[in-house]
Parts: sequence; C-alpha cells; structure tokens
Amino acid sequence: MMTGGTLPNVVILGAGFGGLAAAKALAGKDVNIILVDRQNHHLFQPLLYQVATAGLSPADIAAPIRSIVKSDKNIRVVLDCVTAIDAANRRIVLQKSAPLPFDYAIVANGARHSYFANGEWEAIAPGLKTIDDATKIRRAVLLALEHAEIETDKALRDALLTFVVIGGGPTGVEMAGAIAELAHTSVSMDFRHITPHCSRIILVDSGDRLLKSFPPDLSQKAQAHLSELGVEIKLNMRITDLQAHGVKIGTDWTYAQTIVWAAGVMASPVGAWLQINCERSGKVPVQPDLRIARYPRVFAIGDVASCSGRDGNPLPGIAAVAKQQGRYVADVILAQVRGAPPPAPFRYRNYGNIATIGRRRAVADFGRFKLSGFAAWLVWSVVHIWFLAGYRNRLVVGANWLWSYVTFDRSARLITGIGNDTVIEAADVRMGSTQ
Amino acid sequence: MMTGGTLPNVVILGAGFGGLAAAKALAGKDVNIILVDRQNHHLFQPLLYQVATAGLSPADIAAPIRSIVKSDKNIRVVLDCVTAIDAANRRIVLQKSAPLPFDYAIVANGARHSYFANGEWEAIAPGLKTIDDATKIRRAVLLALEHAEIETDKALRDALLTFVVIGGGPTGVEMAGAIAELAHTSVSMDFRHITPHCSRIILVDSGDRLLKSFPPDLSQKAQAHLSELGVEIKLNMRITDLQAHGVKIGTDWTYAQTIVWAAGVMASPVGAWLQINCERSGKVPVQPDLRIARYPRVFAIGDVASCSGRDGNPLPGIAAVAKQQGRYVADVILAQVRGAPPPAPFRYRNYGNIATIGRRRAVADFGRFKLSGFAAWLVWSVVHIWFLAGYRNRLVVGANWLWSYVTFDRSARLITGIGNDTVIEAADVRMGSTQ
Repeated sequence: MMTGGTLPNVVILGAGFGGLAAAKALAGKDVNIILVDRQNHHLFQPLLYQVATAGLSPADIAAPIRSIVKSDKNIRVVLDCVTAIDAANRRIVLQKSAPLPFDYAIVANGARHSYFANGEWEAIAPGLKTIDDATKIRRAVLLALEHAEIETDKALRDALLTFVVIGGGPTGVEMAGAIAELAHTSVSMDFRHITPHCSRIILVDSGDRLLKSFPPDLSQKAQAHLSELGVEIKLNMRITDLQAHGVKIGTDWTYAQTIVWAAGVMASPVGAWLQINCERSGKVPVQPDLRIARYPRVFAIGDVASCSGRDGNPLPGIAAVAKQQGRYVADVILAQVRGAPPPAPFRYRNYGNIATIGRRRAVADFGRFKLSGFAAWLVWSVVHIWFLAGYRNRLVVGANWLWSYVTFDRSARLITGIGNDTVIEAADVRMGSTQ
Repeated sequence: MMTGGTLPNVVILGAGFGGLAAAKALAGKDVNIILVDRQNHHLFQPLLYQVATAGLSPADIAAPIRSIVKSDKNIRVVLDCVTAIDAANRRIVLQKSAPLPFDYAIVANGARHSYFANGEWEAIAPGLKTIDDATKIRRAVLLALEHAEIETDKALRDALLTFVVIGGGPTGVEMAGAIAELAHTSVSMDFRHITPHCSRIILVDSGDRLLKSFPPDLSQKAQAHLSELGVEIKLNMRITDLQAHGVKIGTDWTYAQTIVWAAGVMASPVGAWLQINCERSGKVPVQPDLRIARYPRVFAIGDVASCSGRDGNPLPGIAAVAKQQGRYVADVILAQVRGAPPPAPFRYRNYGNIATIGRRRAVADFGRFKLSGFAAWLVWSVVHIWFLAGYRNRLVVGANWLWSYVTFDRSARLITGIGNDTVIEAADVRMGSTQ
C-alpha cells in the first residue's frame, strides 16, 4: 500500500467493456481513476440489434456510468469528448473540460462503423454502434411497415417491404434474423393489409460464407437457419452503389426503403490523437503488455488495439477480449505503481463465440465443441442475460425475453423522433429502374 | 345485429385515452373502425413526467396501438396526420394516405402545450406532451448536471444547477417534485464535485395557489410537501421574459440552463379542420350527447371538447373524463346504428383526482374524502400501475418502481440524441445580469 504523497492518476478513455473492466479492477486501489466517455451510459453492444429491431428498449441494455461506479470512491466520471492525447506532457485534451493530467492512460474508445471511401452512404444506410443508431434503424424499419400498410402502389409497397442488410458478420446475421422475424411474425398479427409474405429481407456479403470468424460448418448452419426465417442470402456480392431508393448489388438494383450497414468498422482516431501511425482499420499496434511502443504510459485495449492471439490471427472485436485486456492492464499498472514485477504478456482466453439467429436459434463455437439451433440459443440467452451490466437490467431483460418468447409481443416497438425521415417515392423506383 | 349490407365506418382521430376507449367499446360490433394517430403508440401521459425525470423508460409508459387492438379484427390502424375534416362530404383528409370516408367521426386528438403569444419560448422551455418532449427534457436535465460537474466557474455552475418549472398545475407540481428528487438524492450518490445543496428548483405560478383543480387544503399540503423536497415556490408571479440563459420572473432575472413549460395547453386545431368557431383554448363546444352542433355525425371528446360538469365548471383535462366520453360516444353511435333510443346525456362520474409529489407523497381528492402524504402516494401508485395500458407494462412499471423505491436507483437515466443542444455560457450569465 502506498501511503502519503499524491496517488497516481489513471485516465481511462471510454466506458465500454474494456474501459469499465479496467476501472473496476482499479477501484479501491491506490490510484485516482478518471473515466471519460462522450455518452453518459455504458452500452451492452451485443444486444444493440435487439433495440434496432424493437425487441428490447434502450434502458434494457444501457446503464448510466455514474450508477455503475457510484460506490467506487476513487473513480470520477467525466462526460466529454477527447480531442488529443498529449503524451509528451502526459495530459488528455478534452472538448469542454480542462485537460486531464495522467500518470497512466488507457485508450479504450472502441470503434465506429466505417463506409471506407463511401462516407456519403452513411445517411442512407445507418450502422449500429450507439443507442441513437439503434432507435434510428428501429424507426426506419417500423415506419417502412406503417407506410407499406397504407401504400396502394404495388412497386412502392414492395420497396417499402424490402430490407437489405449489408455485411454477414455477427451483427449483420443478427440484424437480418431479427428483421425477418419482426416483418414476418409480428406483421401477421398486427397489420390488416400487408401480410408476412410481402416482405423481403436480403443479407449481402462479399465473402463466400457468413460469420467468417466461426468454423465453416457453423457458417453453414447459420445460413440454413436464416433461410428458414425467409432471409435471402447473397454471397460473393459487392455493393457497387447506394441511393435513397435502393442498393446496387453487383450489377443489379434492388429497390429498398430500409438499408442497414454492418459491413465494416474503423477504430476511434487514436492515431490522430497520438500522432502515430495506425493500421488501415485505425487500430494502434501494441506491445505484449498492451502498451503503445512510443508511449509506455499509454495503453490501448479493445477495438482500438491491434493484438494477435496465439494462432497469430487478430483477436476478434468482442466484449470478452476487451474485458480481459482491461483487467490485464489494471494489473500491469498496479504492479508498476507498487514496484512489483510486471505480469506475463497478455494472453486471451477464449471462452467461446456465439451469434444468434432470430428468436430460437443460434450458433456457438466453444473451441472443443460446437452447438447450433435451439440449444445454442438457450446458452446464448443465459450468457447474455448474465453478463448484462447491473442487476436490474438482468432481471428486466430476462422478464422481457420470457414474455416476448411466450406471447410474440414486441413491447419496445415505439417509433420516436419522427422528423424529416425520407420515404421512398414512386419517382425513385421508376427513376431507379432506368439506371 | 345488422346483417348484410355495408357496415358503417367510424373514423376515430387520436388513440389517446378517449379514442382508444371508444375503439375498444366498438370492437367486435357491427361497425368498421379506423383509428388514426400520428404516433404509432398509445401514451400513458400521466406518467410522462417520470420519463422526463429519468424514473421510467419510454417503453414503460407507451404501447404500440397495433398491439393493443391486434385481436379486434374490425379495427384498422392508420399512422397519419389529419389535415381537414370534410364534414359535408363525410371524409377525413389525411397528409399521406387517401381520404377516409366516414359515417361517424370521433375527434379525440387531445391538446399540445401552448405558449400563447410567445411561440418563440418553445425552443427554450420545452413542454411535456410526447415521448420526444420527455426525452428532450430528460437530456436537458441530465446534461445540466453533467456540465455542472465539470464546470469551474461558480456563476455558471449555479445557472446549470437551477431548474425552473413554469406552471403549478399537476404536471408542473409533479415535474418540480421529481426534478428535486433527481437533483438532490441521486446527485449525492453519483457525482463527486456537485452536491445536493448546489441545486435550486423553482416552481412559478401566476395564481395564488398550486393545483387549482384541487381543494385549497390539498394545495397547501402539496406546497408543504414540495418545500420539504427543497422546491422554491413562487406564487402570484408571471414570466415576463424567457431567454436561453434564464427566465425573468416578474422583474427579476433568474439564470437557469433548464426551463420546463407546464403553464398552458391548446387543443388540436379542430376548429380549423372543421371551419367552425372554437373557444380561446381551442376546444370545440359540444351538445349534451357530445356531438358538434353543426355536424351531427361528428363527435368531440377529451381535451378537444368543451364540456361542463354538473357544477357548471369545465371538466378537467384528465384521462378519466376522456375514457368515459369515449365509451359514451360508442354507445350513442351503436344506438343510432341499431335504431335504438339514444342514451341519456353524458354525465361525468368523478372517481377522484390525484397528483404525486416526489417519491413518497401525493395529494388525492375523492370528493367525499381527501388524502395526502404517503397514503395518497400508495393509492396513486396502485391506481397508475393498474390503469397502464397492457399487462406487460403494468408488471414492468411495478417492478421498476419497487426497485427504484428500495434502491434509489434511476435506471432510465440515459442521455440519448445528443446533438446541437445549447449549453449556457459565461457570457450569457454576465450579459443577462445587465438587463
């Protein structure tokens, strides 16, 4: 125990899975922790697609950061945006508040979706990283169904009922499955004019299989499950154009009101903040102990860190990796503060990888054994309810799921923030067809 | 039972308490019902202040209209805005869909808040009628606390921590009490720099007592309860100016980042839709059977109808009135469709009037007897949980309240939709002080 003197400042950027794990591991220890996030809530991102498809409400999967750390008196929370990491002077420069001096900094800001060279596609095909992204997609999907219900022009109605998901990773697979269930099952009960058979859900990927981070046989199972739910899967296909009225897949236009982007992510601009070179994905290379080589007092974890597993492959961008890295970095810092020998290099322990497909199926890869179908879905449910931050959320999500499972009810189906959303028009579809 | 022929069309405008009660009373009967609303959800407005003060989530107090009526096969739901009621040709003109022909129309569109001659105040002091209004106020209140936590200028911090509620009716009283609890109780646990004593909550009313629709002794109790919660009550005071940096109460400026408007409502523009004269409040006069005199096939109920009780006073703008009127109009229409004698003129049965003050107190007026304090709060809780539309919400709200009561947790404290909200600045406060 350090006694007397000033405690070292640990500034943690980002209160996602990694940042929060680091903060919790340092809570009550002889350090001052400042946790900076531009949102006031920690988000359980693996369930964000459920908010986007009206299965859960925002409050079910998010908890205020202040509530999570309220008993940890050595943690201070600052709601602000990072503009630079001044490593030479050891301070974090923020947008609104005064710069924060640090002895150690942990960069854990995660990633945003990326449209690569096509930034203008973002306005048409939203991605899914924040609560506001999710409520935006939810509004788009639900409004498309509402407009289809009153639309009398067949071509327009078809476009309103066509949902295209771009990207066949876990987010894309989960989104496509959930939209299919929403459009097929719920519609049949609640609407009078449109029927479940009216909707098309299309999942596009440029590779030759879905879920590339899973073994090939689980990719096959996932494809089979999605097909049963009525999802059309288009593999080896690239998006060549994107307009308000639809998407060009390869050489063919598909008219669609709702397009969701799940095709790529880009790390937060750590390179720019630190003035160092990053990988193409925006990730910053780290040492075996997760320090940034040029700045040994700065660590990077989670989706901003470029880090490989024992097999030499990059670690996946999932919560488990970020959490283990957060706890590891806390150990490194505590050892250094206490003058103890540093821990062994970071090694990721893989407890498994799960993706869910609709309301009753999932695929799970636990290394030694694999699961698919309903058994995998059960495991997925238990694991996700268990890991939700905060006990209340755990109970509410559990109750919600049980209720939704028994009744097919979509309790969270609220359209909020109706503003100047654009709706596809007849002219778009006709204009499009001549392109 | 009518057999053969075409069933009469009943178009109901608005799926609030009145419209929904009418629709449910006509469900399964020999009429076609078309329920038109510009939102896709029915909102339990009496609890909206709980969303604005982060006690409940939007999904706890709102349910999709389609879900509520999904088993009622003679009800069709249309998401659209009314632009005119063409009574001569018996059709409702809508913004997006084709006009709806009607045999009977029930106008139940409710009211919006009104700024009278000061429309420009709306941008500064939002009112509370929709979910989007509530999340906007929630964001403002929570961001004010966050900004105060990092603000070092004392005058600015004071302005950030000053919350002004304008209007001492039930909404204003409930908002002021809930903000006081949020700023005083939650702050003490979650923030490190600002303390409960830093916040000021001011409730302004132009009359000589709060809750004018209650007996004077309950107004006194409400004032006492609010004072215990630390709310400053300013009676007989008018707002003479409103700017981004604060509010001029009488002749004095109070610098405040957050100002909430609960001072007046205006009925939906029924007069303009029907081209008839309305009262100053926008309400349309109705006959004893709730028909509009010039258009006997058009009824008005709830907050759009001007209707007096047995004592000659106008009926209050509360859910109970709208619901009883909705059921009554359904009876009138069914009697006419069936050729039966019309029911006796509408008479409101008053089951009581409750307003809550914070987390443990309320005032309740049941005519014969009155309650205040904790007993009234218990009655209020049971009544409100009971009347929530949809069984799931009832359970979730009940569980939420219990949890929040036991733990002081504010589960719904999410800041969403951070955009270009303006934050008070030092220049505002200083500039203001010279005015």
